[in-house]
Amino acid sequence: MPDRLRIPRPTAKRLSLYMREAGLRLRDGIGQISSRQLGETLGLTDAQVRKDLAYLGQSGQPGVGYPTRDLHDRIRHAMGTDQKWNAVLVGAGRIGRALLAYPSFDREDFRIVAVLDADPALAGQTMEGRRIWPMAEMSHLVREHGCRIGIIAVPREAAQAVADQLVRARVTGILNFAPRRVEVPASTCVISVDFTVALEQLAFEVNLASANGASS
Amino acid sequence: MPDRLRIPRPTAKRLSLYMREAGLRLRDGIGQISSRQLGETLGLTDAQVRKDLAYLGQSGQPGVGYPTRDLHDRIRHAMGTDQKWNAVLVGAGRIGRALLAYPSFDREDFRIVAVLDADPALAGQTMEGRRIWPMAEMSHLVREHGCRIGIIAVPREAAQAVADQLVRARVTGILNFAPRRVEVPASTCVISVDFTVALEQLAFEVNLASANGASS
Repeated sequence: MPDRLRIPRPTAKRLSLYMREAGLRLRDGIGQISSRQLGETLGLTDAQVRKDLAYLGQSGQPGVGYPTRDLHDRIRHAMGTDQKWNAVLVGAGRIGRALLAYPSFDREDFRIVAVLDADPALAGQTMEGRRIWPMAEMSHLVREHGCRIGIIAVPREAAQAVADQLVRARVTGILNFAPRRVEVPASTCVISVDFTVALEQLAFEVNLASANGASS
Repeated sequence: MPDRLRIPRPTAKRLSLYMREAGLRLRDGIGQISSRQLGETLGLTDAQVRKDLAYLGQSGQPGVGYPTRDLHDRIRHAMGTDQKWNAVLVGAGRIGRALLAYPSFDREDFRIVAVLDADPALAGQTMEGRRIWPMAEMSHLVREHGCRIGIIAVPREAAQAVADQLVRARVTGILNFAPRRVEVPASTCVISVDFTVALEQLAFEVNLASANGASS
């Protein structure tokens, strides 16, 4: 049994990627996977892969690799995605719609069970097959479905108020798609997905690469 | 003039956030901003903020801070977003639609100038006010609009082929929303935005927090 407390965050991020690769190979009926194969697919050295996987208390067999199913399940357990994660989505705009349609947000382990929006005109309508609820229903929905995750897909201006409401409704994790930092108590975890930062990082990298190219 | 080659990547990421805060304060007519204010808004120490901003060759005045406009413009220049960045978006599905509607993807400095899709039935239709083009038009559109960025918003299975096409069309940066790594030559930069990894990281963090809570 892996000790979650010992896994560093950068390793946890790579474990997600290893699990995905293992899942694809499982689907294709491939019973073994080596650190070299994982490394090649993901652009990492096999030493890095082996070091990360050692946190799971598992070591591959030289020349054979890891049993795919076992590797997949150990990572799932370490990441906690062998549990059920129900989520409420706040914001029935275009980002919310895209998330509802995104395959990752409707899996066995993660499910958006309810959509809420501050616009009273939307209450009672459906989006991608889910009913839209008024904000006042949040606590009730979180409790009823045992939601541990709230997803913020509202404009910047509304994000903090939504975060406050999610904390009051006792979700323990927030996935924030609004382009701002939200403040929450230390007992609540926040992961932000920020398209603006991603775009600006890309501009920075492209300029860096062309400067390096010009100077070499 | 800042030397872009010297700015570390983690600093570059924070510079994006500082620029956003400076932009908001500019909009509100606030002429000065301190490292303490920036740090408080972003959850960073003011020492970290000062260290990052020192890469711009600028130091704040004790007790006064940085002139907001100057700070904003220096970061913009360092990140390269004082240039124009035209992009082609590949994939006219829900993610593509959400990106077109996202405020960050229609700014003075970043513009999605064309949308392409492999489905011939979509060619000639419009999405969020942009015409959808067949894939065969990619090189032509990239050249005509001087696009340096390609955005991949297609399903996993199609992502590598689209990346190859974007490289052939001579974009130098790729923003990848497909849930897989794409392989490109070293001269092309890729930034991936991966919702699945974000969701799994959140599960990991929530479990970690509750384990820490239980053990303390």
